[in-house]
Amino acid sequence: MSHNTFGHLFRTTTFGESHGPAIGCVVDGTPPGIALTVDDIQRYLNKRKPGQSRFTTQRQESDTVEILSGVMDGLTTGTPIGLLIRNEDQRSKDYDQIKDQFRPGHADFSYMAKYGIRDHRGGGRSSARETALRVASGAIARKILKHIIGDQVTIRGALVQIGKNVIDREAWDWRVIENNPFWCPDTRMAATWEVYLDKIRKQGSSIGATIEVHASGIPAGLGAPVYGKLDGDLAAAMMSINAVKGVEIGAGMAVATLRGEENADEIRMSGDNPIFQSNNAGGILGGISSGQDIIVRFAVKPTSSIMIPTKSIDSQGTEIEVSTKGRHDPCVGIRAVPIGEAMMACVLADHVLRQRAQCG
Amino acid sequence: MSHNTFGHLFRTTTFGESHGPAIGCVVDGTPPGIALTVDDIQRYLNKRKPGQSRFTTQRQESDTVEILSGVMDGLTTGTPIGLLIRNEDQRSKDYDQIKDQFRPGHADFSYMAKYGIRDHRGGGRSSARETALRVASGAIARKILKHIIGDQVTIRGALVQIGKNVIDREAWDWRVIENNPFWCPDTRMAATWEVYLDKIRKQGSSIGATIEVHASGIPAGLGAPVYGKLDGDLAAAMMSINAVKGVEIGAGMAVATLRGEENADEIRMSGDNPIFQSNNAGGILGGISSGQDIIVRFAVKPTSSIMIPTKSIDSQGTEIEVSTKGRHDPCVGIRAVPIGEAMMACVLADHVLRQRAQCG
Amino acid sequence: MSHNTFGHLFRTTTFGESHGPAIGCVVDGTPPGIALTVDDIQRYLNKRKPGQSRFTTQRQESDTVEILSGVMDGLTTGTPIGLLIRNEDQRSKDYDQIKDQFRPGHADFSYMAKYGIRDHRGGGRSSARETALRVASGAIARKILKHIIGDQVTIRGALVQIGKNVIDREAWDWRVIENNPFWCPDTRMAATWEVYLDKIRKQGSSIGATIEVHASGIPAGLGAPVYGKLDGDLAAAMMSINAVKGVEIGAGMAVATLRGEENADEIRMSGDNPIFQSNNAGGILGGISSGQDIIVRFAVKPTSSIMIPTKSIDSQGTEIEVSTKGRHDPCVGIRAVPIGEAMMACVLADHVLRQRAQCG
Amino acid sequence: MSHNTFGHLFRTTTFGESHGPAIGCVVDGTPPGIALTVDDIQRYLNKRKPGQSRFTTQRQESDTVEILSGVMDGLTTGTPIGLLIRNEDQRSKDYDQIKDQFRPGHADFSYMAKYGIRDHRGGGRSSARETALRVASGAIARKILKHIIGDQVTIRGALVQIGKNVIDREAWDWRVIENNPFWCPDTRMAATWEVYLDKIRKQGSSIGATIEVHASGIPAGLGAPVYGKLDGDLAAAMMSINAVKGVEIGAGMAVATLRGEENADEIRMSGDNPIFQSNNAGGILGGISSGQDIIVRFAVKPTSSIMIPTKSIDSQGTEIEVSTKGRHDPCVGIRAVPIGEAMMACVLADHVLRQRAQCG
Repeated sequence: MSHNTFGHLFRTTTFGESHGPAIGCVVDGTPPGIALTVDDIQRYLNKRKPGQSRFTTQRQESDTVEILSGVMDGLTTGTPIGLLIRNEDQRSKDYDQIKDQFRPGHADFSYMAKYGIRDHRGGGRSSARETALRVASGAIARKILKHIIGDQVTIRGALVQIGKNVIDREAWDWRVIENNPFWCPDTRMAATWEVYLDKIRKQGSSIGATIEVHASGIPAGLGAPVYGKLDGDLAAAMMSINAVKGVEIGAGMAVATLRGEENADEIRMSGDNPIFQSNNAGGILGGISSGQDIIVRFAVKPTSSIMIPTKSIDSQGTEIEVSTKGRHDPCVGIRAVPIGEAMMACVLADHVLRQRAQCG
Repeated sequence: MSHNTFGHLFRTTTFGESHGPAIGCVVDGTPPGIALTVDDIQRYLNKRKPGQSRFTTQRQESDTVEILSGVMDGLTTGTPIGLLIRNEDQRSKDYDQIKDQFRPGHADFSYMAKYGIRDHRGGGRSSARETALRVASGAIARKILKHIIGDQVTIRGALVQIGKNVIDREAWDWRVIENNPFWCPDTRMAATWEVYLDKIRKQGSSIGATIEVHASGIPAGLGAPVYGKLDGDLAAAMMSINAVKGVEIGAGMAVATLRGEENADEIRMSGDNPIFQSNNAGGILGGISSGQDIIVRFAVKPTSSIMIPTKSIDSQGTEIEVSTKGRHDPCVGIRAVPIGEAMMACVLADHVLRQRAQCG
Repeated sequence: MSHNTFGHLFRTTTFGESHGPAIGCVVDGTPPGIALTVDDIQRYLNKRKPGQSRFTTQRQESDTVEILSGVMDGLTTGTPIGLLIRNEDQRSKDYDQIKDQFRPGHADFSYMAKYGIRDHRGGGRSSARETALRVASGAIARKILKHIIGDQVTIRGALVQIGKNVIDREAWDWRVIENNPFWCPDTRMAATWEVYLDKIRKQGSSIGATIEVHASGIPAGLGAPVYGKLDGDLAAAMMSINAVKGVEIGAGMAVATLRGEENADEIRMSGDNPIFQSNNAGGILGGISSGQDIIVRFAVKPTSSIMIPTKSIDSQGTEIEVSTKGRHDPCVGIRAVPIGEAMMACVLADHVLRQRAQCG
Repeated sequence: MSHNTFGHLFRTTTFGESHGPAIGCVVDGTPPGIALTVDDIQRYLNKRKPGQSRFTTQRQESDTVEILSGVMDGLTTGTPIGLLIRNEDQRSKDYDQIKDQFRPGHADFSYMAKYGIRDHRGGGRSSARETALRVASGAIARKILKHIIGDQVTIRGALVQIGKNVIDREAWDWRVIENNPFWCPDTRMAATWEVYLDKIRKQGSSIGATIEVHASGIPAGLGAPVYGKLDGDLAAAMMSINAVKGVEIGAGMAVATLRGEENADEIRMSGDNPIFQSNNAGGILGGISSGQDIIVRFAVKPTSSIMIPTKSIDSQGTEIEVSTKGRHDPCVGIRAVPIGEAMMACVLADHVLRQRAQCG
């Protein structure tokens, strides 16, 4: 059991605090003989890294990753892959003021209750800085999926909601995702969000968001019964991302409103292949993939670091008001898109290996 | 890694198919010296067992549990607790017809894709029959929580939505939960559901539902950073229950619509104790309990076994129509209430032990 | 983490005390589609069961195993296999006298120190009765090995030493193993042991022994670097057998006396295949199988239950003398032979699955 | 499951090859609030590091460790501790010649069989270089033991045999351990070894050795039944050290020669405390510590890298002769002493945390 490891056969163990010297991870279980370069990882880290638009934190981190082991002459060797990212833009001083303050919505209070000590600088271990390592691990997971399943595997995420502004699913176009700073698949909604978020940002407030991740090209048969369910692992993976408060598979919470015949994804044949008529199941039946696209959605709360004062207490039990100065994200959900993709890739890579183990 | 085990330090491994001779489990990690009788477990099994109203399956199972080990003279000894429940009302013949049919929404198709073989009788391993063992394990987990934390620990669940019929939260009264066949905390809504479900049942259809589970009396400090988050474990636990497609903590998916200052659970002092002014966090901050009530919600899809025909294929790839004859649940969500409670208890017991390990 | 589980991908979780109603286990990870009957398991249980000669305990147990799940129409389904063995010949009364006594060499003292409570009847959980489940699990493991590797896999054990009476390795003949009550491969030594053990038995004493287990037909490449070493897992497996105090691979402890050129197993070619000229490595290099026979040896201490009085204390700290009345084994090492074979089979089955996972 | 992790609640995951840029590890599960500095770790690394006498490899590594996380203001925070050691003296060129050769006794052959690819430089992942991380982790484990149990905990190892030259146990004096280059507790034998090893070294040969590790001040009650046995974990830990082929607890393999009354460690009272009259059990009964010194012994084979030619094959199946040029250890057992101590510390720290979890 480890509190800092995810995955079973494809397995990542991370370490590092927001304002320590470095963050890093050990990625274990990668099959041998897969081509892997620093660039394969760096390109995904670049998608996640802060400071790329005015809508994400202005912390300047190059997030330059170093591969320390497990790769020789450009090929994985089957031994653990050690990855290291030095922290660069730590302004620990910025946090002296909040050393003894419990910011509402942050992990300050609960960490202190648990450990009796906490690294207050930038959230310490509870900072989203750790998610850079998930993205790095996810890049390796993608390589494994393509190596074992084939090039048809595609994993991609989108931001589908900011506040009450929800995309028009009829307008969904994956090609426009990278044309706006939100990974928004609906060009019109992206424009709405830009105006809306500028307002939120100027007010010193923040706003929640919803992310949706699709995996296509995944064969039927991945997953496992009961406690090894593919959706169970996806739920844990997404809920482990900072600020996530809800996870849905396929139709999600809305299944409560459906009748049996509405919910049923009927099956027909198309040539020799089964074709599902809908995808309320999100590609998972009984915890096992059905061959349809796997669809996961999760909601990210607004960051608690806002300029608007909120009521709280300090470590002495004195009632105080807290407001954040300095850089912060008006919508942390934006940067959660590549993280959600990475977690999807990691869970699937783990299950591909598990499937080989038991079912050959 | 096990596909049939949940928990880390409080750990349950289950076995058994719907129509095999028995189901059972091994519960490992229970501290020694806790009073435990068969009745302590049986009373929770009785809450879950089928056939208690016309709204749940008419399969007749007494679900009589036998304790095979780990208890001596009425006290736990610290060694693994083996539990056994014999299956009684297996009508395997009922399932001969569907042996080669893939019922939409069921695990038939995906199990076959994974294993190339499946126990088709009553769903085999994918049957909700396995959840009896979760309820049994949950009964032991409750004992552990009370033993270590104290009698103030209360874990209870309620059905809060069937179809589009949602309870009035202002009318929430825990005392009426057992006065209706739905574990509904809103007496008026229970009456509505009764009429509504009778209609669904007579139509041979089924309907989804939402369950909410509360744990109170839980101290701050349970959980762990990053991949050992209390909410991550709860999400995995609830998503592992049959037919669940979404899990929410506190405000859940709705956090996407909230601004930072709306979402923040402000803190004041009440005497020497911190008092939160709201509970959007569902009692969990940064993956660690805050001392507030822990609140989890999950949606259960309508059962796919309905009398209304749906389009599907058989194992030969022939297009067919499927409809279920014989007993079935019009709303499987009802019986998910004690299961959700049990999973909450198990996850918390696990984390109480983990907290003792690392933080003494 | 579980204290009552062994294996990773092929994984057995056991429960049960010597004098409780039953013992049992859950065997998880078996590939689907393998032919498996009760007889496949029972025949190995019959090798281990007590009371088969005057040199093992006279407890009468039929050790009849019941398969409760995971098998349909004679084939494994890939779901967990539940196994149950009812205890029959519990004479709990025999143990009333020692309820508060700590027998030297037994786990009485340390269990009490750990748990503050113990099941004193027949050793409770620390009894070798649990090993019946290892033998059952080992029978399934053998099936897996033959299914994946082929029929050439052979796992067999022998008793090679009782007291100072060591077999003559030149006289080793696997064919005579079942012709004597000791699994002794040296007919002459078996005769010596018979006389020797009769003397030990009549003196009310007991004696230690050494077991050696060989696995042949195992391909090169099983195992894993560093902490997943095949020999590391074998060492843990054998040391987890009751009364074992030492484990050796290949040349074992004697490597301390060897020079580099003596220890080196030189390699030549025989046609297209490498042929090792010796096997000091016991078939394992760097934690990974080399294709040679895998050879493990372990020493079992004499049972502490003897009629000769030994000095001890009771739970009140009073100095006492302890001697055992009633049935006991003069040489518990004899019955360890099928257990050692079973553990070898389980570890290898686990590693065969692991190898498929990572290396395809 | 991880092939590169050891421990359950105190848990270390390592990465790195002999001739890659760095080695490192993540140490998870350390309780918060323990004073920890780089020096606490470095002093143990200095004991292990190469090139300290003419009897160990001449590779020059400062083994300077960097703490990257988990410690703030000199105290552990409860979050994972990342450690990094840069490799300095890689002479990868030295290994070009053996790129396609399988050196007898090395992992070359089996790694290739497993992965189809291997890092041949200095043994890659199979190099003993990885053990530096065990020593680092062991230094933290010692801190945990003292923090939870108290300052009376002492863990120390000694070399007790080189070739056929065994120490005189009557002459055992822990105080002289650091006065000779062998960690030998018998001054006279140390002198003998010096002459003997010089001869071995000049002959270009190597020799095996036996290490013994003692832990004193450990309370009764650590360990767990069946598969969580303290001795099972110690066996796995020691067998996972490079070149180890046998592990013994207490009397070890010699128990095969003992009668029940000889083996029994009788118990008397000394004031209020039980006093054992002997320690054949090596401080462990039924897998659980008894309060006596815990004693583990293991044998290390002679290094296979010798100047004397041995017969082997290359990756093409051509028969060759192999001999090692350049630096090597005449007796790798010497450097195994601090490694064995570290593994003992790690296993005990793990079990101290496990004991807190289940038994409070």
